[in-house]
Amino acid sequence: MVSGLMDHATAYAPGSTSNVGPGFDCLGIAITGLGDRVTARRAEAPGVRVRSVSDTRIPSQVDRNTAALAAGGVLRRASSEMGIELEIEKGLPLSGGLGGSAASAVAGAVAANALLADPLDKEVLLECALEAESKVAGRHGDNVAPSLLGGAVLVQSLEPFRHTHLVVHPAVRLVFVMPGYEVATSRARALLPVAVARPEAVAQAAGLAGLVLGLERGDGDLIASSMIDRIAEPGRVPLYPGYAEAREAALAAGAWGVAVSGAGPTLVALVPEDRTAAVAEAAAAAYDGLSGGPARTHVAGVDDEGARIL
Amino acid sequence: MVSGLMDHATAYAPGSTSNVGPGFDCLGIAITGLGDRVTARRAEAPGVRVRSVSDTRIPSQVDRNTAALAAGGVLRRASSEMGIELEIEKGLPLSGGLGGSAASAVAGAVAANALLADPLDKEVLLECALEAESKVAGRHGDNVAPSLLGGAVLVQSLEPFRHTHLVVHPAVRLVFVMPGYEVATSRARALLPVAVARPEAVAQAAGLAGLVLGLERGDGDLIASSMIDRIAEPGRVPLYPGYAEAREAALAAGAWGVAVSGAGPTLVALVPEDRTAAVAEAAAAAYDGLSGGPARTHVAGVDDEGARIL
Repeated sequence: MVSGLMDHATAYAPGSTSNVGPGFDCLGIAITGLGDRVTARRAEAPGVRVRSVSDTRIPSQVDRNTAALAAGGVLRRASSEMGIELEIEKGLPLSGGLGGSAASAVAGAVAANALLADPLDKEVLLECALEAESKVAGRHGDNVAPSLLGGAVLVQSLEPFRHTHLVVHPAVRLVFVMPGYEVATSRARALLPVAVARPEAVAQAAGLAGLVLGLERGDGDLIASSMIDRIAEPGRVPLYPGYAEAREAALAAGAWGVAVSGAGPTLVALVPEDRTAAVAEAAAAAYDGLSGGPARTHVAGVDDEGARIL
Repeated sequence: MVSGLMDHATAYAPGSTSNVGPGFDCLGIAITGLGDRVTARRAEAPGVRVRSVSDTRIPSQVDRNTAALAAGGVLRRASSEMGIELEIEKGLPLSGGLGGSAASAVAGAVAANALLADPLDKEVLLECALEAESKVAGRHGDNVAPSLLGGAVLVQSLEPFRHTHLVVHPAVRLVFVMPGYEVATSRARALLPVAVARPEAVAQAAGLAGLVLGLERGDGDLIASSMIDRIAEPGRVPLYPGYAEAREAALAAGAWGVAVSGAGPTLVALVPEDRTAAVAEAAAAAYDGLSGGPARTHVAGVDDEGARIL
């Protein structure tokens, strides 16, 4: 059916916020309005090449680019000899804590699969994107899975990859505040504790259980009482100038809960619809003079669809 | 309105299983078919006395008996000078891990409140029962709350007491297997780790979040992948001869998940309806020769009603 094949396909994959307070290292939510696009084009020579990346700080070498790595994984699993060239349009910031490398990996996998006329199912595409992300940013899955599948995803195990999908209640909105500095994920991970005191581990578990119930129910009180990360955030706060102040300001302006998005420095607030503007404004103002530049804001809903061909 | 007051009231409070694998120290489920009854009678002399306890190993001194302590808390909070005598009928085993001291406390509080014509609401009764249980068995709440409120209860915080109620899907049945020995809660708590390695703490949180979703959805696969306690159970297994064997047998017979109920030694299995008999039989047989006497079994559903006046 060579005649039925497209000569190019463009995939969009949404950004995502991972960790989400007590969901450290296991919960991610796909978001509306920010994401990466990857166009895959058929080429003569077999294998994957990166033709262009909109952000020049992202490496275009195939073995360091998550979109190319994921597209390569698709070719390999589909046993295809096709040649693919990629154009990568980054809508997500580098080192922002919005799942940019994961979204590029997902979009690369989905675009390559479409070019091959969809030989692989979503679970295999997930594996391709996970593998790609793990070569560049470590194996997590809490960004890759929501970016591909949409909604919120609880990752229960990496080997084997086990996850469950949550439908977030439409009353829940997300406000992102991006301060004017960057933090490398490796720096943030270096500050993680080796062990957690037993009462804190119990409270983290109860918090995450309350959070997933609160997200599904749209229960703001439950989200508010659940949204505390006792594992990663306490040690990391010094990495994020202005975060503590912005967190307080967001809560005072009506946010249910606030956390560092992924490895930061972006702040994410879970917010009722009628408080999104107030929370964004208050948190951004709190970073003034503390964040090395003006803070940007983004108000989002949950992207229930996940990655798709445009 | 003295003429309208009853001269006695009998309350029933269901037993409960706490911990439930990854819900260690924060999740409890009220169960059908086993519980305690407390009858409160008006007496001449003010204060609370215990007239009888069906299990003579339970202390009848007012300051060591959870039903009497809870009834006393009700009198105090209601500012009542009434005298109350209690008759306590234990349906729950001592040191069994089925929330016996909590059920007696709840039934004592509910019976005393009924005798006073219900001056206190459920949140205050919860506080009375918690206070009573904490004087005898330590402050937990993961048995008291489900016994009073019914269903499953996630305890998020003890001070202040914050909890959320779950409706367990009717597809979920519970099989209890009680070996022929007892284990003191204090011995089981002495074996708890001071700290938990970070990956285990993350996995515990993801497990509990998966479990509460699985319980609400009636999703056996999700319950199965979630039902691992990484905090308490690993160090405690040596306390429970035969448990490891019975757990394997229950899983092989079709249980979704198995844990130690409370501080044990009772085993609890979450089981689909059509496998309850097979799981009960297989797990009980696995204790043969290992449990110091024949193991008893109890097949239960979730008691959605909680404590009530009979």
